[in-house]
Amino acid sequence: MPETKTAVPDTMMAWVLGNPGQLTLVDKPVLRPGPAEVLVRVDACAICATDLEVIHQGPPALPGGEPPFNRNFTPGHEYMGTVVALGPTVDEYAVGERVAVEIHAGCGRCERCRQGMYTSCLNYGQNEGEYSKGHRANGFTTDGGFAQYAVNHVNTLVRVADSLSDELATLIVTAGTAMYGLDVLGGLVAGQSLVVTGAGPIGLLVVAVGKALGASPVILTDIRDDRLETGQRMGADHVVNASREPAVDAVRRLNGGRGVHYVVECSGAPDAVNEAVKMVSRGGRICLAAFAHTPALVDVEHIVTNNIYLFGIRGEGRSAVRRAASLMAQRKIDVSPVHTHTFPLDELPTALRYSRERIEGAIKVVVKPQMASG
Amino acid sequence: MPETKTAVPDTMMAWVLGNPGQLTLVDKPVLRPGPAEVLVRVDACAICATDLEVIHQGPPALPGGEPPFNRNFTPGHEYMGTVVALGPTVDEYAVGERVAVEIHAGCGRCERCRQGMYTSCLNYGQNEGEYSKGHRANGFTTDGGFAQYAVNHVNTLVRVADSLSDELATLIVTAGTAMYGLDVLGGLVAGQSLVVTGAGPIGLLVVAVGKALGASPVILTDIRDDRLETGQRMGADHVVNASREPAVDAVRRLNGGRGVHYVVECSGAPDAVNEAVKMVSRGGRICLAAFAHTPALVDVEHIVTNNIYLFGIRGEGRSAVRRAASLMAQRKIDVSPVHTHTFPLDELPTALRYSRERIEGAIKVVVKPQMASG
Amino acid sequence: MPETKTAVPDTMMAWVLGNPGQLTLVDKPVLRPGPAEVLVRVDACAICATDLEVIHQGPPALPGGEPPFNRNFTPGHEYMGTVVALGPTVDEYAVGERVAVEIHAGCGRCERCRQGMYTSCLNYGQNEGEYSKGHRANGFTTDGGFAQYAVNHVNTLVRVADSLSDELATLIVTAGTAMYGLDVLGGLVAGQSLVVTGAGPIGLLVVAVGKALGASPVILTDIRDDRLETGQRMGADHVVNASREPAVDAVRRLNGGRGVHYVVECSGAPDAVNEAVKMVSRGGRICLAAFAHTPALVDVEHIVTNNIYLFGIRGEGRSAVRRAASLMAQRKIDVSPVHTHTFPLDELPTALRYSRERIEGAIKVVVKPQMASG
Amino acid sequence: MPETKTAVPDTMMAWVLGNPGQLTLVDKPVLRPGPAEVLVRVDACAICATDLEVIHQGPPALPGGEPPFNRNFTPGHEYMGTVVALGPTVDEYAVGERVAVEIHAGCGRCERCRQGMYTSCLNYGQNEGEYSKGHRANGFTTDGGFAQYAVNHVNTLVRVADSLSDELATLIVTAGTAMYGLDVLGGLVAGQSLVVTGAGPIGLLVVAVGKALGASPVILTDIRDDRLETGQRMGADHVVNASREPAVDAVRRLNGGRGVHYVVECSGAPDAVNEAVKMVSRGGRICLAAFAHTPALVDVEHIVTNNIYLFGIRGEGRSAVRRAASLMAQRKIDVSPVHTHTFPLDELPTALRYSRERIEGAIKVVVKPQMASG
Repeated sequence: MPETKTAVPDTMMAWVLGNPGQLTLVDKPVLRPGPAEVLVRVDACAICATDLEVIHQGPPALPGGEPPFNRNFTPGHEYMGTVVALGPTVDEYAVGERVAVEIHAGCGRCERCRQGMYTSCLNYGQNEGEYSKGHRANGFTTDGGFAQYAVNHVNTLVRVADSLSDELATLIVTAGTAMYGLDVLGGLVAGQSLVVTGAGPIGLLVVAVGKALGASPVILTDIRDDRLETGQRMGADHVVNASREPAVDAVRRLNGGRGVHYVVECSGAPDAVNEAVKMVSRGGRICLAAFAHTPALVDVEHIVTNNIYLFGIRGEGRSAVRRAASLMAQRKIDVSPVHTHTFPLDELPTALRYSRERIEGAIKVVVKPQMASG
Repeated sequence: MPETKTAVPDTMMAWVLGNPGQLTLVDKPVLRPGPAEVLVRVDACAICATDLEVIHQGPPALPGGEPPFNRNFTPGHEYMGTVVALGPTVDEYAVGERVAVEIHAGCGRCERCRQGMYTSCLNYGQNEGEYSKGHRANGFTTDGGFAQYAVNHVNTLVRVADSLSDELATLIVTAGTAMYGLDVLGGLVAGQSLVVTGAGPIGLLVVAVGKALGASPVILTDIRDDRLETGQRMGADHVVNASREPAVDAVRRLNGGRGVHYVVECSGAPDAVNEAVKMVSRGGRICLAAFAHTPALVDVEHIVTNNIYLFGIRGEGRSAVRRAASLMAQRKIDVSPVHTHTFPLDELPTALRYSRERIEGAIKVVVKPQMASG
Repeated sequence: MPETKTAVPDTMMAWVLGNPGQLTLVDKPVLRPGPAEVLVRVDACAICATDLEVIHQGPPALPGGEPPFNRNFTPGHEYMGTVVALGPTVDEYAVGERVAVEIHAGCGRCERCRQGMYTSCLNYGQNEGEYSKGHRANGFTTDGGFAQYAVNHVNTLVRVADSLSDELATLIVTAGTAMYGLDVLGGLVAGQSLVVTGAGPIGLLVVAVGKALGASPVILTDIRDDRLETGQRMGADHVVNASREPAVDAVRRLNGGRGVHYVVECSGAPDAVNEAVKMVSRGGRICLAAFAHTPALVDVEHIVTNNIYLFGIRGEGRSAVRRAASLMAQRKIDVSPVHTHTFPLDELPTALRYSRERIEGAIKVVVKPQMASG
Repeated sequence: MPETKTAVPDTMMAWVLGNPGQLTLVDKPVLRPGPAEVLVRVDACAICATDLEVIHQGPPALPGGEPPFNRNFTPGHEYMGTVVALGPTVDEYAVGERVAVEIHAGCGRCERCRQGMYTSCLNYGQNEGEYSKGHRANGFTTDGGFAQYAVNHVNTLVRVADSLSDELATLIVTAGTAMYGLDVLGGLVAGQSLVVTGAGPIGLLVVAVGKALGASPVILTDIRDDRLETGQRMGADHVVNASREPAVDAVRRLNGGRGVHYVVECSGAPDAVNEAVKMVSRGGRICLAAFAHTPALVDVEHIVTNNIYLFGIRGEGRSAVRRAASLMAQRKIDVSPVHTHTFPLDELPTALRYSRERIEGAIKVVVKPQMASG
């Protein structure tokens, strides 16, 4: 029988979000895991662009959310750590294991969860009060990882290979989102042409996962040369600086004059969807993985006359995070070019600033609760 | 051994398109069917909105087409008739059989045709000259049905049940498009909620096929009361006049406050896509079946945060026409409310006017080559 | 706010299974529903062939089960009734609603449940003790419906249309299994040929659901003329008495000399799988829905050289029960020919005998707790 | 405009099959390519176990075939070479390009070909005479590669990377079959457990392709230690000698006590199917890729109660050969351990003996028409 508990303090340091932009480092009780839950000591938590939005504008990704909706809320959803306590009925994990997190645990009882579409849970955010259904989106609707400890449903955990550092393990969920983006396109990407638009962390990871699964060629577009260089280190066969050549033209030129099989749109740029539908060949497929902030003008007739399919994804899904973690454990993808900076947890404001302002070429900035502050 | 030929004249009456809008009734040679082809005596040919565009503006659906691209071209793609001659190797049909047509025969050798996606043929329109690959889109890239005879590849034919009149049999391809629209959504529509936006012939047929396959409720939206009434005759559980109530609100009200499972967009209206993505629930799916003529402003973030999928279809596909013909033969769908007018072939200009101007409530207007002119 | 409780007695009459074959009618506590659970007053419970096995030999369908595994166990899995109490967090149902049941609720946390494959739950039967994961298979691993009351997870409930009698509503789960059998074949059965082998209740319901969804032709095989007649009442286009003509020959003869698209094997007969693979055309698909009790000799080479796919299903899945209930509410399938006898609950032994010995042509025999005993 | 012809002799050396076992090296006319066809100068042709059957017992894989069915027939289906002439309409390939072959070109007009299932062509073998539909199965129903030249439909060709030797390029079709076997299982094998039963060339290639796509762990079973060693060189994480430990037990032991996600059955052993269904977890999937020669006794109840799916594949399909060729061009799979021997074309009988008797550990034996005989 595995050890089911280790010494856990009653309180912890955690950042909590008050009014938009108001983050405070406080002492907060360490919650105990309930049935099907695990308490994780956070060892590292990365900053995602969505965190910046959650913190500065309130959570845009929460349907119906009214910011500030949770005055004692701890953001942070790309974290990893060590299991320190198991809730009732948990035997899937053991105390001492290293784990990373998925964001979403569905309610398990709505129509979408019953289909396995837990990221489309119809009870999204319904996790408090009399009719709580138990949905969790770590760091969005429930407390997240900018803290020393975090409670997680077992469904949001994935094992971390020993070979992977804490910092890189925070990228497992990003890799899982990239994997899921290829899954919804049908998954059979080996030997197929793939364009990734946008060289943010998700786009860079789509490049890496696409290459690991045999996509060829993989073409990355962005308007920042340094990010395109990182894309080449992640394995992109070709990169296109869309500020210097129309991206659609470049893609067709690089793909032998033809449209490509697949596009994963990771930029959120205003014309990105419309360009994507021009990049694919007749019958091509497009995954929309970026939170665009303005409506896009789309040539619907082109979609219709060319039998194009588009698939929106809100982060990961269908256990893709676990499959992506395996690719990382097998060293088939190397995410190290994406991780650029690490700070102690108490320097989160500095870390956020690096991430937001892309100081020193920052891509993925990580905070570590166990790290001594500088 | 079946009879393989009947008396076929050397010439026939056929409408040919010159400059945009210039249709002329001429004597034209009756072509002989080649390998895998059949000669069909046209018994009825319906007018589709796309015919009006082909005739008046040149074929908008032809990639790369430069109108007038074919000075001797006969339009018309929704036709049916009787097999009168078989080309070499044909034993799939016999002389004397009644057949209706699909529009598309793929080249059979491009990547998409090899996948069975013949309506996404990458050699679309490449059917003449040295490197002809044999793609056909009847009435678009090859001669169609506003004539006494038409050659068809066996892949574009489907048998017609004896119980079905010539006029109603012209709607088999429309029913097939409707069926294919539900196919791409996953096909499992029984007991699922379905909105059809736009009460043109395709929308009305999606209502009928959706009801035949058990979708419930089926909600039809349009801004024309007479078309909505026809929709009710086709089986719609609810109709919404979007000029009197915001369609998204109405749909949610009629579906118990929830988003629906599926939308088939058949209106081509400027805001149709954006409304469709608001009509479905998280994880919902949308088929885009209408040729919109202006780019649409789309809330991409809503698509992404709600895991919505969109599927463009250019008409029929994957032999859905044959499955739809079976539903009609089984009398599970009654398309008679959609057929409103019939004219002799030589009155095609009048028929086109009825269709274009919706004279006397015209929906589907049919011309019949064997009918004596008035 | 809905009423959440009605007067519920503390004890109830329930049949419990001791040693194999030993059923006793006892007073038993009425359990209270926990979170996500509902208490149902059983209004009708049908007898399935699997119940006869559970009762007489112990549950053959329970992995690792060691009969008698549960001395206080109440069998019965095809039941319906009225909601009389709601557990915490339940707002999906209201007290007073009529509901029927699915059999399976997955644990919600194993790999298969996360995929939506709750009938393949990897924690099947793990519903007691320290590491209980909450899986339920009503009447198999948890108490079932041969009682006055039964607790159900909300995931195992489906609403019953007012138009449906209690007796016929017990067949919703059977219709759901039939629907699921067609789902796994791809679901696009309209206009496709379908053979159903075995005219037990599931086979008869596959005929009805297949016809409702437009399959054509639907051919039913069995060796009992009375069951084949019932199949014709359910809509079969053709019936084959396999004791008088080799079934494979008959199927090909009835389908124009060709193999069929789909077979749903519902007989469990020793040669059924082998015959099914000979009935389908190249590329055909077969659903295996019957619990065969002896290994079958299968021509694997024929499967391989003809690209045949086979799909085992253990009852219902993927919310097919809810879609089937909708078809029944829409009166697209009429299950009344399958229901033949009704007894009060206290006459269960007689009811079981009718079912087992097929007395008076018994097909589906129902017991009703509220019915006065004769 | 590409060169469309090079000097091609009128006759060639080719092996032809008379009565079973009677192979003769003859002078035979070099056929000219028709529309959509290409003439290939054969540079290398590998021997497959099925060739041994075709030659010695007549073609077991040909539905309805009556051996000796074609007295002038040239077997050999795993070949590659150089394009030397193009038939009318061909611009997909140019003279001088190196190509390997797929086996199957469908008729393009039957129901299965219309679905993209060209290996399930319903006109299999119907390629001669009045109603020829044009189906080809190179080396099975049409002349194959044990000759200096071979005509191929463009659909059966795939480009060969410069980096690949002639000998290894003959394995592209085998890699394509392996890829297709994973495709039919859903394709999402990264991070999923995979068992390959049987270490023949297809099994060994499934190991390689599975590893290239990230499957983990990959477990190979066989009863020959030398083949298992080759499997380890191809990347197998674990190998099991089933003559020393029950394979089902070993698989579960190596997979942490659990069943695996996928099995690809490549052995054709009598109990292989039954063992495969015991190797997978509930909801697991099995690809049947081997031509078993005796019916197998299968525990159908286990398939049903565990929701197991089985997919028969007759060689390659859905353009998997092209995707596999890309993996080889990307050096993601190294097939060199599988190629063991090379002989000149005129020593085919010796080559066949090496293959059949596995002389000197022969796995894949290749003949080369351009090679000087020893």
